[in-house]
Amino acid sequence: MLKLSTRLVKDGGLMKKGIISILGHRTAEQRQQIRIAYQDLHQEDLVKRLESELSGDFEKAVYRWILEPADRDAVLAHVAIKKLSPDYHVIIEIACVRSPEELLAVRRAYQARYKRSLEEDVAAHTAGDFRKLLVALVSAFRYAGGEINERLAKSEADILHDAIKDKALNHDEIIRILSTRSKAQLMATFNRYRDEHNASITKKLLGEGDQNSEFPAALRTTIRCINNSNKYFEKVIRNAIKRLGTDEDALTRVIITRAEKDLKEIKEIYYNRNSVSLDHVVAKDTSGDYKAFLLTLLGKED
Amino acid sequence: MLKLSTRLVKDGGLMKKGIISILGHRTAEQRQQIRIAYQDLHQEDLVKRLESELSGDFEKAVYRWILEPADRDAVLAHVAIKKLSPDYHVIIEIACVRSPEELLAVRRAYQARYKRSLEEDVAAHTAGDFRKLLVALVSAFRYAGGEINERLAKSEADILHDAIKDKALNHDEIIRILSTRSKAQLMATFNRYRDEHNASITKKLLGEGDQNSEFPAALRTTIRCINNSNKYFEKVIRNAIKRLGTDEDALTRVIITRAEKDLKEIKEIYYNRNSVSLDHVVAKDTSGDYKAFLLTLLGKED
Repeated sequence: MLKLSTRLVKDGGLMKKGIISILGHRTAEQRQQIRIAYQDLHQEDLVKRLESELSGDFEKAVYRWILEPADRDAVLAHVAIKKLSPDYHVIIEIACVRSPEELLAVRRAYQARYKRSLEEDVAAHTAGDFRKLLVALVSAFRYAGGEINERLAKSEADILHDAIKDKALNHDEIIRILSTRSKAQLMATFNRYRDEHNASITKKLLGEGDQNSEFPAALRTTIRCINNSNKYFEKVIRNAIKRLGTDEDALTRVIITRAEKDLKEIKEIYYNRNSVSLDHVVAKDTSGDYKAFLLTLLGKED
Repeated sequence: MLKLSTRLVKDGGLMKKGIISILGHRTAEQRQQIRIAYQDLHQEDLVKRLESELSGDFEKAVYRWILEPADRDAVLAHVAIKKLSPDYHVIIEIACVRSPEELLAVRRAYQARYKRSLEEDVAAHTAGDFRKLLVALVSAFRYAGGEINERLAKSEADILHDAIKDKALNHDEIIRILSTRSKAQLMATFNRYRDEHNASITKKLLGEGDQNSEFPAALRTTIRCINNSNKYFEKVIRNAIKRLGTDEDALTRVIITRAEKDLKEIKEIYYNRNSVSLDHVVAKDTSGDYKAFLLTLLGKED
């Protein structure tokens, strides 16, 4: 790792090619070792150096990549909360895609970094139904076992159906069910819902609520993140690329956070859904070091 | 420990004196070692043996005492939730007196024991305002640092004051503040409240709400557990003893859960408040092995 960390610098300047090829191919643990070795060798923090020398989307991507995953999620959550209009999708994504233990690690990292709890910042920057949902989701420490109670799945599928039918989406029962039940139990509930009503619950939620309310969309994101996160991520990437002017933040977030998890499956879903490879689209839509870095993480060498 | 564990049994029967003098003087860690040594020696679980041979309040006290603290809290919480009318004071006590890390350990122990999360059971057995408050309190992972934001303490003391003045005790803001802020921050907020309104917030809450609502009492318990748990425990014991027919469950719970924490301070507060020692009152109000065991935990030999 010491040897690798020397290859990041040449003639006193950071080697962008070195960053891309070395850091892009290392695991989270190896990246932390490189960061420590770099500190020993140069008496400075590699992250600080990256911040001062790199810029734009490339800097943001490298910075997020080099952080330890829970710490990275804490940063992503904090950035999302502090926006003038909080980016609730990112909060939901972190709360619902991560495992119960991973979410707990994010809450610890958030406290270490910001000297406040994640849930108190979420609560302080949101209001009404959004606050109820988001605070409950980030505070959850779900049971992680696979046991399913079929009777409960049926009764709670009925509760969800009634709430949607009555257009009472902010009903406390919806939030209780989505924020406290285990993922396995919720997937059974969603399946039960589909069996009984010939449509997925997310389909039924489409078009609910008035035009000005984003709350039904928040519920859909919650359900999709719990039910099939890879499909959810494919859509995030698709929307990020579809926009006039790519949404680099979303693209970076998905590729960086899933690179060591399930990016391969997300790429497959993307290819099946769009008949074009994600690598191809990313290569077309991005440029320079940022492009090279994302393609390295996608597993495609330049 | 092996030697000690042999002294618990004589002529095939459990020695009650042995249980009282040995287990009553051992730390939580030593008790676990005795349990393991007993298992090795007799090929049976000491807890199961205690359950089958002891009875009544003595059994309950010994059973709670021998459990690892987080596991014991999980049992206490489960018993409290499953009551026909859930004993919300116990839930609040566990959620608010324990440190953030201790509460987390309780949530883990609860899942290991019952294959469900603590918050989903609390949510499933409560409703309305109580559910909102209790689920938020047990889901909290508060920041444990000592930093205080004085400006925030003032603004949130004002929010609490307005809610009490408007008789809107179920206001989401009250629950948000009590369930997400760090204990240090909340103590600053309560102090600020007292400075501005010449009375403690718990005093102001007295007499609020209609006669049939126990919700103001739940809020008072929450605040007292956060603000000064020793004073709170003194009152629990005082009420347990004052009743016609002692409330052994409450008495046992406080003595067992605080014996290795702050029972000495609670005894001092009790003496100052009642001009009689707790040992004396317990000796008068209880009898037999149960009495001997409690007095051992109180530090007074027979």
